[in-house]
Amino acid sequence: MRYKEMAVEGRNAVLEAFRSKKTIDKLYVQDGCQDGPVRTIIREARKQDTILYFVSKERLDQMSSTGKHQGVIAFSAAYEYAEVEDMMKLAKERGEDPFLILLDGIEDPYNLGAIIRTANLAGAHGVIIPKRRAAGLTATVARTSAGAVNYTPVAKVTNLVSAMEDLKKQGLWFVCADMGGETMYRCSLRGPIGLVVGNEGEGVSRLVKEHCDFTASIPMKGNIDSLNASVAAGVLAYEIVRQRMER
Amino acid sequence: MRYKEMAVEGRNAVLEAFRSKKTIDKLYVQDGCQDGPVRTIIREARKQDTILYFVSKERLDQMSSTGKHQGVIAFSAAYEYAEVEDMMKLAKERGEDPFLILLDGIEDPYNLGAIIRTANLAGAHGVIIPKRRAAGLTATVARTSAGAVNYTPVAKVTNLVSAMEDLKKQGLWFVCADMGGETMYRCSLRGPIGLVVGNEGEGVSRLVKEHCDFTASIPMKGNIDSLNASVAAGVLAYEIVRQRMER
Repeated sequence: MRYKEMAVEGRNAVLEAFRSKKTIDKLYVQDGCQDGPVRTIIREARKQDTILYFVSKERLDQMSSTGKHQGVIAFSAAYEYAEVEDMMKLAKERGEDPFLILLDGIEDPYNLGAIIRTANLAGAHGVIIPKRRAAGLTATVARTSAGAVNYTPVAKVTNLVSAMEDLKKQGLWFVCADMGGETMYRCSLRGPIGLVVGNEGEGVSRLVKEHCDFTASIPMKGNIDSLNASVAAGVLAYEIVRQRMER
Repeated sequence: MRYKEMAVEGRNAVLEAFRSKKTIDKLYVQDGCQDGPVRTIIREARKQDTILYFVSKERLDQMSSTGKHQGVIAFSAAYEYAEVEDMMKLAKERGEDPFLILLDGIEDPYNLGAIIRTANLAGAHGVIIPKRRAAGLTATVARTSAGAVNYTPVAKVTNLVSAMEDLKKQGLWFVCADMGGETMYRCSLRGPIGLVVGNEGEGVSRLVKEHCDFTASIPMKGNIDSLNASVAAGVLAYEIVRQRMER
């Protein structure tokens, strides 16, 4: 994955960047700036776990490319996504059946990061996430993935169902992780496969589920409802690994 | 698990509670109190994700049991731990071979919570954590466990190795999750078992590892080092579940 850093300068631009939920990794504030707008920016930064640096005006002047920083310069992370074809290519290069993980609305960046990390170690060829209502690649995700974002391609698609349709034409079939399916140990999870993991609260959405070839369940012996989403993804991904190693 | 709530009143006591890293769930502050000590307390509260309520003096007076709240009352959570014997009893009641999960220094409360959640659903009879250098049962852990702390016993022991020695006398044997062992699919994980999961950064400590009967590894096919600790615990716990279901 390629990573770009983008500078945002000036009070309105920086505040706007925070409010638009862009990931701001670092915020440089001019020492001694204490007026209302700057305090508002600092408050937003604290809320979002941005790293704060208080620096001299000279330092900011040096960093500024517009010359109009007004006492604040923020750096936002911009990650470049891969394409689904890159994943298919990767599988081909490795001489393996494609193994993709599709996330139907994972919202928690820690879960997304942990799943990308798992995808990397389980030998999956990529992770596909939808554009809307889902965590995207942010600095938190990159950190939680323990660097796996640099190796495992992550693609963002407008519509998960049409991505699945396309992949089905290329020979993939889809297993959905959900309750009420066949126990995963009894499912055959071999061949070119897409593992679909649902949202933390609501599981896999109806439409996506209808496009899956079958449902595999993790046996649940306890008193509560469901595993943490990244743990569930890990358990299922490794059941695929086990079955692939078996033959 | 039983849960008690404890009130802490007065500025010094509240500040002390924050500084001693007690888990403070809720902090009530008298509206309009803006002096130095109260601001310090609010800052600590924000750092620790405590829920803040600003209330009238009358409300605080009502809540106060000492009559000396000085504008601040905090509520800390106190969880009561189970004993290791409770777990052995639980296994016996269910007519199952004991299955315990031992955490050798898990520091992240989110990981601890997710592991207790996994333990519950994988049918483990309890989770054992050490007293020192490890996350304990806090409100965050309870929340992350999705309520599993209310069902799955969690015991805190002074010394993990002596707890293992005791359990060995009761017929348990211990498998340590670490790299460089036999691939888990090839290990026999049946019978009365204790699964030992290591610290996020450093894995299982040397002494604990020496007291394990063997090491089981999760196959790693990727470019990075290790899975997230709670994902690794989940993958291994479910390999135990699979082998137990197989016979």
